[in-house]
This record gives sequence, C-alpha cells and structure tokens, in this order.
Amino acid sequence: MPIQQITIVGTGLIGGSLGLALRASGFAGSIVGCDKLAVLEAATARGAIDRAEADLERAIVGSEVVVLATPVGCSLAQLEAIAPLTGREALITDAGSTKTSFVERARMLFGANARERVLPGHPMAGREVGGIANADAGLFRGAAWLITPVAEAPDTRTTSNFTPRQQEWLRLLSAIGARVVMLDPERHDRLCAWISHLPQMIATALASSLREEFGDDEALMQIGGRALREMTRIAHSPYSMWRDIALTNTENIEEALLRFEQQLSHLRENLRGPGLRDLFESANQWPVTSGQ
Amino acid sequence: MPIQQITIVGTGLIGGSLGLALRASGFAGSIVGCDKLAVLEAATARGAIDRAEADLERAIVGSEVVVLATPVGCSLAQLEAIAPLTGREALITDAGSTKTSFVERARMLFGANARERVLPGHPMAGREVGGIANADAGLFRGAAWLITPVAEAPDTRTTSNFTPRQQEWLRLLSAIGARVVMLDPERHDRLCAWISHLPQMIATALASSLREEFGDDEALMQIGGRALREMTRIAHSPYSMWRDIALTNTENIEEALLRFEQQLSHLRENLRGPGLRDLFESANQWPVTSGQ
Repeated sequence: MPIQQITIVGTGLIGGSLGLALRASGFAGSIVGCDKLAVLEAATARGAIDRAEADLERAIVGSEVVVLATPVGCSLAQLEAIAPLTGREALITDAGSTKTSFVERARMLFGANARERVLPGHPMAGREVGGIANADAGLFRGAAWLITPVAEAPDTRTTSNFTPRQQEWLRLLSAIGARVVMLDPERHDRLCAWISHLPQMIATALASSLREEFGDDEALMQIGGRALREMTRIAHSPYSMWRDIALTNTENIEEALLRFEQQLSHLRENLRGPGLRDLFESANQWPVTSGQ
Repeated sequence: MPIQQITIVGTGLIGGSLGLALRASGFAGSIVGCDKLAVLEAATARGAIDRAEADLERAIVGSEVVVLATPVGCSLAQLEAIAPLTGREALITDAGSTKTSFVERARMLFGANARERVLPGHPMAGREVGGIANADAGLFRGAAWLITPVAEAPDTRTTSNFTPRQQEWLRLLSAIGARVVMLDPERHDRLCAWISHLPQMIATALASSLREEFGDDEALMQIGGRALREMTRIAHSPYSMWRDIALTNTENIEEALLRFEQQLSHLRENLRGPGLRDLFESANQWPVTSGQ
C-alpha cells in the first residue's frame, strides 16, 4: 500500500520546499504540516501542505511518514516525543544537518527496531534566507540527500536492507530531483564539518571581521566583486540553526577549524616565500565545478 | 582630438576582455595588442585586437593610451621600459590588483609629470579561469573600475583635475559598463587586501586543506553544496598573478589574515558558548547582495 499521508514537522524553508516539491512531483497523498500557526497559514497559502495542525501529537495521526524538518535540537526532542505515539506503520525521518546524535537518540528510543523505524536524512540544500516565504519546489533538484541508516555495521552502498516503506520514501526523494547518497553517520558528520560547517563558520567569521574593521563603510559593497559576495552570502544564516549544529558536531568542527587556521597561518608566513606556490598549486587541483 | 589608437599590453582575460568590450561599446579607433605570439593570434581571431605586435617598443608607437594588463610585477617592469619611449600625447594606465607600488614607480619615473602621464586603474572583475579563451565583452559590466590617481593630496571625489585625455579614458570605461570609483592608492590596497586578497587566500587555504584531508575522495564533490562551490571557485586562480599581489601588498594581507585567523579561533573557542551568537548576529548585519 503506497504512502497516503506525510506529516512535515517544521514547514519553513526545508519543510515547506519539501511539501511543494512532493506536490510538484505528483505525490497524490495528503500532506499535513505542523508548525506555529502563522507559519502554517503561509504554508497552506503557498500550497505546501493540505492540512495544518499546530499540535505535534495530532499532526502525526494516520501518517505513514513523519519528516522532522526543524533545527537538530528540536528534531531530537520531537523524536523523543513521538516515539511512544507511533507504530510500525509510520516511518520517521528528518532533515537535520548533523546525524550522529540523531542516530544515537533513535537507537536509545527504539532499540532493535531503530533501523526499521527511523531513516535519518539530510538534504544538502538550503538558502541564506530561511522561512516558508523562500520555500521553492526546485530546492532539492540536483542536490544530494544524504541518508545515514541506523545500523550496527551498515552496508552503506545498497538499499536492499531497507523496508518497503523506506524504499518508497527514497523513491519519493528521487522523484523530487534529489540524489540519494548513503553514508554512515560518523563519516557524514566529519565530511559535513569540512564541506558545510567549516564554510559557514568561514563566512560568519569573514563577515563579522569586515563589520568590525570597516563598519558600514560603503566602499566595501561598492567595490566588492563576485568573490566577496559568494564568500559572505551564507553569513546571513540564522544562529538558531547553527547553534544546534555546533552543539551536536563540536569536535569535528573544532578539528576542521583548527586545521584550516593552521593552513592560513602557513600561507600568511609564506606570502613572500616559496610555500605560497605550493599552496596555490595544491588548491588548483581542486575540481572545477559548475552548477547553480 | 579623440583617442584613435589604444595599445593593450597583455591580451589575456583582462586585456582581451577590454579589447572586446571597447569594440562592443562602439570605440572606433584601432586596438593594438602586445603579448606572446600565440596569445596574439587568439586575440586577433576573437576580434579583441586589430593589430598584433609582440614587441613592446613597437606596440606603443602612435597610441594615445597604453593599458598594461599584466600581473603587477610585469606591469612595473613594462612601465619602466616604456617611460622613456612615450611622450605627453600618450596616457599610460594599467589593470593591476595592487596600486601603491605602481603609483610609487610612476612618481619615480615621471616625477612632477606622473599625475598627468599615468592614471593607475584596477577593474574589480575576473574569473577563476584566465586567458584569452575566457575573455568576455561583458566582463566589466556593473563591475567597479578603481582609479587611484597619482597625486600628493588627491581629491579622490572629482575628476576635474584630470587631463582631457584622462577624462576621455574614463568615459570609455563607463561606456563598457564599468563603474569608475576613485580611491587613493593606500586605501585601495588596504580595502583590496580585505575584500579581494583575503577571500582569495581563504579559498586557496580551504581547497588545499580539503585536498590534504580527503585527497580525491569523490564524496566531497558528490555531496558538496552551493556554499562549498562558491567558497572554492577562485581556488583555481593562478599563482603567477597572486605571487605579485602577495609581494606588493604583503603587510595589508598579513594584517587581514591575522585578524581573520583571530576571529576564527574566537569562533572555535565559542562553539558551545554564547560568543557564537554574537558572531552570527554581527555577520547577519552584512548587507545582502544579489548579482552574478
């Protein structure tokens, strides 16, 4: 029996975009949204959800898939709240930016059934401006949607150990244009510390340094080029989301930051020396990519 | 008498794009290119220049404007080479990324006539891939073209002290879509250390760190999102150009790097603390910009 109802908890940028994308891809079932009333109104108006329900307990009744699309700290609390209320018929998934703590919580709550009941996920998509107002049916097109199965020794390459419900969910993700990629949660968190969390911290540190150094000096924006715009675009990302990422992936982010700081110092000490050439030549090996 | 002939020394990405842009904007005079023979052939084939001349001395004969569009170190040497060969009728300008050393060299070579004879410039445009093959008539559209007049006490806000030839050159820059912005050279070099050179060093350090940490691990590119692509795009910039920038703006770049490293350490030490909120809130004040 195919999925007939999906509950999206958190209908902001990610949850709202997911609703719009499911609808645009032809998903014929019902989409229930759960969030604050004002957000639910906007999500309904935009067509991202069919039914609005501010109460979490009521929102999940009758759904075969529950998607937690809130900051990691909230998702952990919501997982705990809904664990005793959902049965085997409901698959729980999420869209959180770190995965080890979520997988651990799922194991703690569901024991031997965790692998079957919870399929943690993380779409590598976002925008520097959040909220349902910026939701977009095409947000996940071409983006990786990382899946970190709850398993003792995961075969991360195949989906053959997945339940039919899980496989159906993955097919829905493909239908909205995402590329499903399997990873184990520890590798996920270390990789994301480097390719997502470190870039965010760099943008935040760069923009705040520029503010401290130049204040509102108009010349900065007047003469700044594309590189500056790109490097600071995500500096507008909200603390509320990143606090939870920093709290649930601290050691990996610390390590990546420290290594990067060392590289910067090395570069600084070699501005007039031969080391600068080595750094540029190593960086030149970085794959050229295009894309949005 | 309007400008009838312009010599562009260095017909790669910047010089080639300038030739194409001048032509596209309706400049009716002749454009002479000076570079290596293979580059000149390509520049001629693309229509960026009307006449190719590999010899610098011959290339500048009869031109009312000579544009040095080579790495800063080359431009300094070329300025020195052509100084005794050009008369009052020829305006010398450049497209170098740092300006203090160029202005100093102009003063040294031209003495009291430096202000009239040399009008240093710096287009804030570029691409991560250089060369005439990537030249583009639209490269300067909407970009700032910084002008740092050679003057003891520059009035940086007006062009009224400029010679008619200089004013005509600035009108050509406006015609190709650039926004002319006046700065004094010291301020230029400090600002550019922060908004252009620091971002480059960050991209280089980030890409080389990722290479060291993950080698050719395909997962990086498979799951990396837009932020990673943006932050590493300019990591492909050539050492040959950046070496000269590092050599001619060392102290400003050192200072910007050091301040940024301190901000990163502060952030790292506050991943679990209240300081993270302050940094995000400061960074959130950074102006939202659009554009390519």
